[in-house]
Amino acid sequence: MHDFRKINVGVLGATGTVGQRFITLLADHPFFILHALGASQRSAGKPYPAAVTWKQTKPVPAVVRNLVVRECKPEFFTECEIIFSGLDADVAGPIEESFRLAEFAVFSNAKNYRRDPHVPLIVPLVNSSHMAMIPQQRALHTPPLRKGFILTNANCSTTGVVVPLAALEKTFGPIESCMVTTMQAISGAGYPGLPSLDIMDNVVPYISGEEEKIEWEMLKILGGLTEGDDGNKAFDMHAKQPLRVSAMCNRVPVIEGHTECVSVRFARRPPPSPQQVREALLAYTSDAWTMSCPSAPRHTVFVHEEPDRPQPRLDRDYQAGAGVNVGRVRQCPVLDIKFVVLANNVAIGAATSSILNAELAVCKGII
Amino acid sequence: MHDFRKINVGVLGATGTVGQRFITLLADHPFFILHALGASQRSAGKPYPAAVTWKQTKPVPAVVRNLVVRECKPEFFTECEIIFSGLDADVAGPIEESFRLAEFAVFSNAKNYRRDPHVPLIVPLVNSSHMAMIPQQRALHTPPLRKGFILTNANCSTTGVVVPLAALEKTFGPIESCMVTTMQAISGAGYPGLPSLDIMDNVVPYISGEEEKIEWEMLKILGGLTEGDDGNKAFDMHAKQPLRVSAMCNRVPVIEGHTECVSVRFARRPPPSPQQVREALLAYTSDAWTMSCPSAPRHTVFVHEEPDRPQPRLDRDYQAGAGVNVGRVRQCPVLDIKFVVLANNVAIGAATSSILNAELAVCKGII
Amino acid sequence: MHDFRKINVGVLGATGTVGQRFITLLADHPFFILHALGASQRSAGKPYPAAVTWKQTKPVPAVVRNLVVRECKPEFFTECEIIFSGLDADVAGPIEESFRLAEFAVFSNAKNYRRDPHVPLIVPLVNSSHMAMIPQQRALHTPPLRKGFILTNANCSTTGVVVPLAALEKTFGPIESCMVTTMQAISGAGYPGLPSLDIMDNVVPYISGEEEKIEWEMLKILGGLTEGDDGNKAFDMHAKQPLRVSAMCNRVPVIEGHTECVSVRFARRPPPSPQQVREALLAYTSDAWTMSCPSAPRHTVFVHEEPDRPQPRLDRDYQAGAGVNVGRVRQCPVLDIKFVVLANNVAIGAATSSILNAELAVCKGII
Amino acid sequence: MHDFRKINVGVLGATGTVGQRFITLLADHPFFILHALGASQRSAGKPYPAAVTWKQTKPVPAVVRNLVVRECKPEFFTECEIIFSGLDADVAGPIEESFRLAEFAVFSNAKNYRRDPHVPLIVPLVNSSHMAMIPQQRALHTPPLRKGFILTNANCSTTGVVVPLAALEKTFGPIESCMVTTMQAISGAGYPGLPSLDIMDNVVPYISGEEEKIEWEMLKILGGLTEGDDGNKAFDMHAKQPLRVSAMCNRVPVIEGHTECVSVRFARRPPPSPQQVREALLAYTSDAWTMSCPSAPRHTVFVHEEPDRPQPRLDRDYQAGAGVNVGRVRQCPVLDIKFVVLANNVAIGAATSSILNAELAVCKGII
Repeated sequence: MHDFRKINVGVLGATGTVGQRFITLLADHPFFILHALGASQRSAGKPYPAAVTWKQTKPVPAVVRNLVVRECKPEFFTECEIIFSGLDADVAGPIEESFRLAEFAVFSNAKNYRRDPHVPLIVPLVNSSHMAMIPQQRALHTPPLRKGFILTNANCSTTGVVVPLAALEKTFGPIESCMVTTMQAISGAGYPGLPSLDIMDNVVPYISGEEEKIEWEMLKILGGLTEGDDGNKAFDMHAKQPLRVSAMCNRVPVIEGHTECVSVRFARRPPPSPQQVREALLAYTSDAWTMSCPSAPRHTVFVHEEPDRPQPRLDRDYQAGAGVNVGRVRQCPVLDIKFVVLANNVAIGAATSSILNAELAVCKGII
Repeated sequence: MHDFRKINVGVLGATGTVGQRFITLLADHPFFILHALGASQRSAGKPYPAAVTWKQTKPVPAVVRNLVVRECKPEFFTECEIIFSGLDADVAGPIEESFRLAEFAVFSNAKNYRRDPHVPLIVPLVNSSHMAMIPQQRALHTPPLRKGFILTNANCSTTGVVVPLAALEKTFGPIESCMVTTMQAISGAGYPGLPSLDIMDNVVPYISGEEEKIEWEMLKILGGLTEGDDGNKAFDMHAKQPLRVSAMCNRVPVIEGHTECVSVRFARRPPPSPQQVREALLAYTSDAWTMSCPSAPRHTVFVHEEPDRPQPRLDRDYQAGAGVNVGRVRQCPVLDIKFVVLANNVAIGAATSSILNAELAVCKGII
Repeated sequence: MHDFRKINVGVLGATGTVGQRFITLLADHPFFILHALGASQRSAGKPYPAAVTWKQTKPVPAVVRNLVVRECKPEFFTECEIIFSGLDADVAGPIEESFRLAEFAVFSNAKNYRRDPHVPLIVPLVNSSHMAMIPQQRALHTPPLRKGFILTNANCSTTGVVVPLAALEKTFGPIESCMVTTMQAISGAGYPGLPSLDIMDNVVPYISGEEEKIEWEMLKILGGLTEGDDGNKAFDMHAKQPLRVSAMCNRVPVIEGHTECVSVRFARRPPPSPQQVREALLAYTSDAWTMSCPSAPRHTVFVHEEPDRPQPRLDRDYQAGAGVNVGRVRQCPVLDIKFVVLANNVAIGAATSSILNAELAVCKGII
Repeated sequence: MHDFRKINVGVLGATGTVGQRFITLLADHPFFILHALGASQRSAGKPYPAAVTWKQTKPVPAVVRNLVVRECKPEFFTECEIIFSGLDADVAGPIEESFRLAEFAVFSNAKNYRRDPHVPLIVPLVNSSHMAMIPQQRALHTPPLRKGFILTNANCSTTGVVVPLAALEKTFGPIESCMVTTMQAISGAGYPGLPSLDIMDNVVPYISGEEEKIEWEMLKILGGLTEGDDGNKAFDMHAKQPLRVSAMCNRVPVIEGHTECVSVRFARRPPPSPQQVREALLAYTSDAWTMSCPSAPRHTVFVHEEPDRPQPRLDRDYQAGAGVNVGRVRQCPVLDIKFVVLANNVAIGAATSSILNAELAVCKGII
């Protein structure tokens, strides 16, 4: 592994679900140093253990036990270079913007800037090349920002599907249609999230806004970053081959790990066989792994051979939840190929993605 | 309601999950009289309460408390006309055949004869017209049977999808493709069925043989019963318009009620709108209701308007689980229309279907 | 059954969990006529179906579909005689008082007045004799109330234990000590109540204030209503034989039905045998049943003989949840006798108790 | 840590639930070398991955991937010194005896020899002094065994209670009475164990034989090992102060971690205060920790201060499940002190106990 310099990082929304996960993951990080925690005014000024209702299965890490929570204002984070934002969407917008303007590298888990035409939406196992948009993002400001930028990761349910699809497009060319039915874990809804009376012994066949997110985010992530005659870059939303995505989203009584049933149709005829698809998934390697990012999974896509895997309870913690599990690759009588995806929604689906994106930005010299 | 004559019925596999449900439903039936119970040799000779591990939420009905369990042989059921079979597939084959040969009307919930070219596979809310095959089935024997026949109902997960599809085909003509992803309740696996360690906080993305059943049974049920030049009838397996079905089956931690995410493409262009689909579903009425079968649901398909319904825990007992719930009717970016189905797997998905089929056979004069 | 006159009733807190249960139960009541619904200002003025997030497994009853929700003020309920209050404790106090002052008979499920020395705390299967306090409660006002009063039912977890204890004290004399460990259903916490992340695959060994409620309420309910030399009545809190109660309360992932492990020590030596205890429980009959209250259960205490019963999922709906289930009666090596209790927390533990109390008040001529 | 010599160990019942847990724990052990695996004839001869239905959340460890499963006969384990038995009780008796006779040190998780008057029943955090019985056990054979012996650990639910009780008796002298109500996880029943239909949305207030185990095993473990005038040692079953134990055992829908509500009465008057009890629990240290056993937890008893802890989902993995969690220490109105215990039933409640016992036996020079 590289000999990275240490970098101070801050976490916004540190008392929330995603914030707690950021802290758990960063506590042992080889070169990101957890230095400052931000939360709402109500929490500011308290020692972190007094401010948080800790809901992780590991105890509060020693490194944050004596940190005092700060307000989410750039002036309280001056010793940090990188900001991880686990803020809720209803407050993330202006706060993240204020940190960008103050020249921080902001890695956001919130949805607010995902559709911004100058903000990369990056699943670190897929499209780190989209970081090339960052200079243009900085140049929008007057005067141009030197270091500040916002970079978002994808919605948790998008992340699971898009990784195997990227592997398939890399090997077999563009996908034309994708149908995905999700069975999403309750932790995806944050805390307090779903009332237990709504989900015990039940399925809720609806998650507000989720289907739209999958159908839109997949185009941005799998699409290219093209450069116009004027030298301006733009996300092309998979323009070369229109990609139709149909998502049906469900909440199921599972604590962690989104399971998704996926079927795809390729542009190329004849389509690849299930065995070719399995091999392409196995062969796929991420930039994050190639560049030795410490949080990158060895197996970007782990392909299960048993007929009844992956399963969330048994497989969600494999590789600390940083990779994506695929199983049951087989022919689809309607489209071409269908399979099952399992991705850990709180790891690669959330905090791990942000951290990997930050590691990649360091490796690429953007930070 | 008609003034039906009373008919003695027997239940085979009376101590099993489906058998218990048959007994619960038949205990209050207006004209089927629960007269005899059959089970394995181990149970035979015991009073029913001593033979059964009763797992229903209602107590053992008074009508069976003094019945002594019999072996599953026709000579012990001579006072009955109708036999409901809740036998497991590994023993159902020869036992059901022996009852047919002994001139009983056998309504089977087992899979053994579903693919038999002379046995109707009937979802009572859909294709009771397939009972027209029964004379030909009887005529296969030498000498021809006078009263005996076998009639099966469909797999629990097939039943849920096929009812709305029948409604749609009736109004808009043939469907060309159907994708269905199921989230099936544990009660569909019988008892003891799934170990709790396998399904708590988990999804199992595989049910052995289930996808094949859905993909095949839908063709037989939605297809026609055509008559050749020789006067012989045959099930045409939806031959006029080849129907491609793709099923992805999952087990989820829900006790009762199969939820299914369905998307369809119609042959006709342009396809109907979501609103037209909703209206067609609402307007659909089954023969069973028209003919005043006592177990028929008033709303064959109940269409929910709330965005997050149907849900198994809240909606599975509506109309005693005899109808099918549909919600979230909307456009599909890949096929034409998508929606959510909820069907009670132990009611319309199993015992209620058999009983409705028997009621229909009585109404149609076949019994 | 008596030929009762019809009585108009109103429900306060009609959109909440307890309110919904009141409505479900009252919709089919033989002589209480559901006439008016009250809720917060936010809901007032809306048709009930538009105001409520209905969470019952039965649809909204026809009788309330056209009712417009009113504010919880006595002037909007003048056509009613009886008020059932499902209000939350944070607002119940002054609202219930205003209805009492306006001469309504208020049956409250809230905790606010349970400790009031002039308000009866009545489990209808146990201590309806405590209604004798009502005249004294009315006389406290100047001028004395003619019809108004407040009567409360007990906490859901108290109710389950106190019924078998009353049966035992009736037969064997006073109990000296009682230890109870509860395993309480999530529905006891209302809606939204427990976040699913807190209770799935988990036990929470703490319910705020619950142990104190059980330890105090049991004394008031099982105690006598004694009359002083001045003719004043007072609840004696089980004074003749000090009763020590120790409760340990837990929340478990069960939707409905509180299970409680109980052990008791009798004052009398030698104590009764398990068989004598079983017989005393079976023989116990409530006033509510004797007086033909329509909601009274035939078996006040149903005693299970199977070693593994009662169980919440299988037994909570027996007798519509109006009775109490007891099982596993056996000797306790530390105290005298131990057993398991199951009571439906939303039926006899809440709305059914209020309704039975009102039925009793009618039968006794208090209303 | 000591510089221990490496010792080859074998696991019997290697394909079962406890066996899988032994393998997971031993795979990384500093001085026990996983050398041989035994299972039923059906599995013998197969590579371990082909013989097992692996149900752990970590993948099959590399060290056993190439091991071929052997029959459970001593001649196939000659390179091993220590045998860990995860055999089911119905076969464990004669097999464990055959290994003892063949001079193996047998650490058994089965119940078969727990009541044997010469077999120590040891919870490694409590009564490792009982290993002093081993020479007498060996001497019973003709000729006396040189190395062979059987040593058992306790039932999973006994283990949780007995650790804090040992801490309390050490500080405050004998306990006179103990009431314990358990809420036990499904993993305690092995695999397949409980059918999901029996436990989802349910509590089963009965576990066959469990209450008797707790009531008896506690006496043996907390009792002394006394020496008669003839020099013969015997377990005294807590004879100096008769200890009355009453257990009420329940199964709840939790995957891992037994929660137990405990109340105790001390012999000494006045009894200690809750604060004194907390301090005694915190101060308690096991031999296993003092002797630097690698699997020993730093905090034998971890005392939680939050009112709602310990909880199985959040606390069961603390210290890899090797310690015991206690919370809610408070006065009991009936006995003296009550509290909540959480112990990981598959770690300290099963395999971890056996391994710690073996580590202790090595440290004490018995092996």
